[in-house]
Amino acid sequence: MTEYLRDSWYCIGWSSQLEEKPIGITVCGTYIVAYRGADGSIIAMDGRCPHRFAPMNLGSVNGDTIACPYHGLVFDRDGTCILNPHGGGAIPPNATLKAYPAVEHLGAIWVWLGTAEHADRSKLPMLEWWGSSDYAVSTGYLRVEAHYQLVMDNLLDLTHGPYLHADTLGGDPANTVGVGMRHEWDTQPGPVLHSNYFVENMPSPSPQIMALVGDIPGRLQARMRWRPASILDLDLRYSPAGGGADAHIPSVHYLAPESDNATHYFFALARNVDITNETLTEMLAAQVHKAFAEEDEPMIKACQSLMGTSDLMSMKPAILQTDAAAIQARRLLKKEMA
Amino acid sequence: MTEYLRDSWYCIGWSSQLEEKPIGITVCGTYIVAYRGADGSIIAMDGRCPHRFAPMNLGSVNGDTIACPYHGLVFDRDGTCILNPHGGGAIPPNATLKAYPAVEHLGAIWVWLGTAEHADRSKLPMLEWWGSSDYAVSTGYLRVEAHYQLVMDNLLDLTHGPYLHADTLGGDPANTVGVGMRHEWDTQPGPVLHSNYFVENMPSPSPQIMALVGDIPGRLQARMRWRPASILDLDLRYSPAGGGADAHIPSVHYLAPESDNATHYFFALARNVDITNETLTEMLAAQVHKAFAEEDEPMIKACQSLMGTSDLMSMKPAILQTDAAAIQARRLLKKEMA
Amino acid sequence: MTEYLRDSWYCIGWSSQLEEKPIGITVCGTYIVAYRGADGSIIAMDGRCPHRFAPMNLGSVNGDTIACPYHGLVFDRDGTCILNPHGGGAIPPNATLKAYPAVEHLGAIWVWLGTAEHADRSKLPMLEWWGSSDYAVSTGYLRVEAHYQLVMDNLLDLTHGPYLHADTLGGDPANTVGVGMRHEWDTQPGPVLHSNYFVENMPSPSPQIMALVGDIPGRLQARMRWRPASILDLDLRYSPAGGGADAHIPSVHYLAPESDNATHYFFALARNVDITNETLTEMLAAQVHKAFAEEDEPMIKACQSLMGTSDLMSMKPAILQTDAAAIQARRLLKKEMA
Repeated sequence: MTEYLRDSWYCIGWSSQLEEKPIGITVCGTYIVAYRGADGSIIAMDGRCPHRFAPMNLGSVNGDTIACPYHGLVFDRDGTCILNPHGGGAIPPNATLKAYPAVEHLGAIWVWLGTAEHADRSKLPMLEWWGSSDYAVSTGYLRVEAHYQLVMDNLLDLTHGPYLHADTLGGDPANTVGVGMRHEWDTQPGPVLHSNYFVENMPSPSPQIMALVGDIPGRLQARMRWRPASILDLDLRYSPAGGGADAHIPSVHYLAPESDNATHYFFALARNVDITNETLTEMLAAQVHKAFAEEDEPMIKACQSLMGTSDLMSMKPAILQTDAAAIQARRLLKKEMA
Repeated sequence: MTEYLRDSWYCIGWSSQLEEKPIGITVCGTYIVAYRGADGSIIAMDGRCPHRFAPMNLGSVNGDTIACPYHGLVFDRDGTCILNPHGGGAIPPNATLKAYPAVEHLGAIWVWLGTAEHADRSKLPMLEWWGSSDYAVSTGYLRVEAHYQLVMDNLLDLTHGPYLHADTLGGDPANTVGVGMRHEWDTQPGPVLHSNYFVENMPSPSPQIMALVGDIPGRLQARMRWRPASILDLDLRYSPAGGGADAHIPSVHYLAPESDNATHYFFALARNVDITNETLTEMLAAQVHKAFAEEDEPMIKACQSLMGTSDLMSMKPAILQTDAAAIQARRLLKKEMA
Repeated sequence: MTEYLRDSWYCIGWSSQLEEKPIGITVCGTYIVAYRGADGSIIAMDGRCPHRFAPMNLGSVNGDTIACPYHGLVFDRDGTCILNPHGGGAIPPNATLKAYPAVEHLGAIWVWLGTAEHADRSKLPMLEWWGSSDYAVSTGYLRVEAHYQLVMDNLLDLTHGPYLHADTLGGDPANTVGVGMRHEWDTQPGPVLHSNYFVENMPSPSPQIMALVGDIPGRLQARMRWRPASILDLDLRYSPAGGGADAHIPSVHYLAPESDNATHYFFALARNVDITNETLTEMLAAQVHKAFAEEDEPMIKACQSLMGTSDLMSMKPAILQTDAAAIQARRLLKKEMA
């Protein structure tokens, strides 16, 4: 059973999800409920009613309070039971839900599962482009039946792109690996891990980039930042030869571990090219769905299935030079947990 | 792993199920087969053939005997193998099925899994209205993916009705809890646990009752009797203000635990109002299906899922005054098992 | 957890399966990949890439090599990694897949999971009729959710035929068991176990045989050969009374254990009667599908389910005289494993 870094922000949904009903989600093995209070701020607490362990997210929200859907106990924003509608109305011992720090940030809902006093907004992701009118942004969600570290390994090592995603995000290996894909990485205080990939002279871009700039040679820069436990953004830039405008395709990838073999994966993709073109938007969304849901997810799930319950490192895998960033992320995570 | 009260009657089906083929069902972790013998009486025994552990209920019944569907071994009503059709026909050691006391009672099939000498018909439910031509009765079955005690908790505590079943059986909380729902309970030798709920002045009845008497204020009496391990009947009576005839809506709720997280739930509902009205019968059946299959079952299953394999009491739940009857049932059950 | 006889040939597919793509299959708990090399010979090795444990069978074959579908590592036919396309291209420690002896034999692909030096082609099945133009042959596959020894028990004991397969392969018990089905068995060096069933005067044949010779009385001979761990062939011959030509219906039954409760079952059926009759071929295929997929598989799966994780013999089953061959096979298997 995995131990998780609880002193960490985890994305549990996109802001839009809170318009309709509360979010109920298991993160790091803990079932939580989140909803928007009277002033619009985010309220998060244990998601199981302390009476019969019913899922609070099926209950109804009224101002800052939420009522259990099973017997109607009402809880305030700090998790205190403030109404027992039955009998004499006495509120018994243990009728409390643990509350968690929660914030809305960059269009997403975040919770801090560890010590409340440690909750530090500076550890949330910083994205220069988010909210800019120069970008079209779309968000998505995928449940991956694998340990979140396998998903993080997948994200941190872009060298799988030309193999697993030749027809979508990665393009032909001949045009990336074949012409010298360069990898650099370092760690900064925070901690933040940078992992950057460069292809100086790409004969032909990936289908994704081609949809934005056409089939023009160019220079690819892919810069990743990772913060423990599972916050990653990928800043992708393609500079067509001949001096055309850069295509900037930044994306975010937030993972919330559910259990040892399931992960909530929240992602968003943006672009600065032809941003009002709906046909292009749909085409890119279909491409990303193919890449994530039909290529990445089945592959990661298959690896998890073939690994069984074993931890990756305990299986003494062959470690490539290009695994350095992913390995370093695992080390940083361990250090943060210690 | 739950220990079960084996010295107890468990309902394993409605009588009508035995017209076509034997019943094969797991009760208290034991797979059993039941069928009707030559004289119409009920025969029950272990449901796994002692040869290759094939499900006997797929075999064919001939008078008092049943033949294994796999290799044709034939067993008599006491579980003795009386025919091996192969080779010299010798009947080997261990070729015996354990037989269980079984009876047909109130339109249902009952087995006693414990010591045969303890099987006591006086512990079967007594229903004054069953079989009366003044009542229309319909029976049903639901498999619930939860521990049977969670289902029993649900039944014994009617206060969930106005919350979980506001649109069907429970009605608006304002009309029950809001106007003073009174709870009384006691235990009698047997043991029998009584748990009764009263609403003296109900401004408007639940949709179920409204279908029988119209939207008329009245007095609600709900009287439950529970016998260990899992035999419950609910005697519901609504007396409209103004002196109209009472609506009497008695029901039975028999649980057979399958395993730690699955329960067979047999129920029957009756009414003394407009008993030949087929449209009404269909409407009430749809209402009950919604209440049991779409409201209770998902809620109990969700609680079980969020509790994992933990026992309710070990999780130190908040206990309301209105949980008294359910808590007492758990105590009585423990006492019976000791 | 079962221990398996690894020094044994296991069928992992029909030859035709290798025309399109590699085979990926779990045998005796080991995931393997198999494909056809440049010279047409069979290459088999561990099926999990040593880097991230991706399923190698989803990769692409080029001559004798296979490339991992996830990051493109290329392996030679002996399992050595010969290309890392990334970074400096260094091939790290542990980048090796264990190779297994593999052969193509009688239209099927076989692997030897144990010590390579022990791989002995003389232990492969010998079939006089395979490849003869006098026979029509069809092959099939079924995944059975049960321990492979339960499937082998089923095959080795034909007495279940008249009960489980009365409408297809077995015919009416009255015409086989009822008129004296005789069983003989012995073991020969190899080891090979013979288990033979004879019905001297069969009043009416099974539906399968009836489709070939009509409803004519006759003599049935069913001769089985079993080699450990799980190679069986059944030589069925029906000699109609009155001197008509024999119907010869040989079949093979190869089992590859996947895990404690799943088995790969490869089968082939042949006949020497009316071999170009397509309608007959389709009718027999439908009959066999009914017998195997709708009668045997559900029964064996049900037995497994009712047995839970217990070993058959530990459950002290009733053992019939007609179980002798199946019991002897279990003994021989244990001896081979020791």
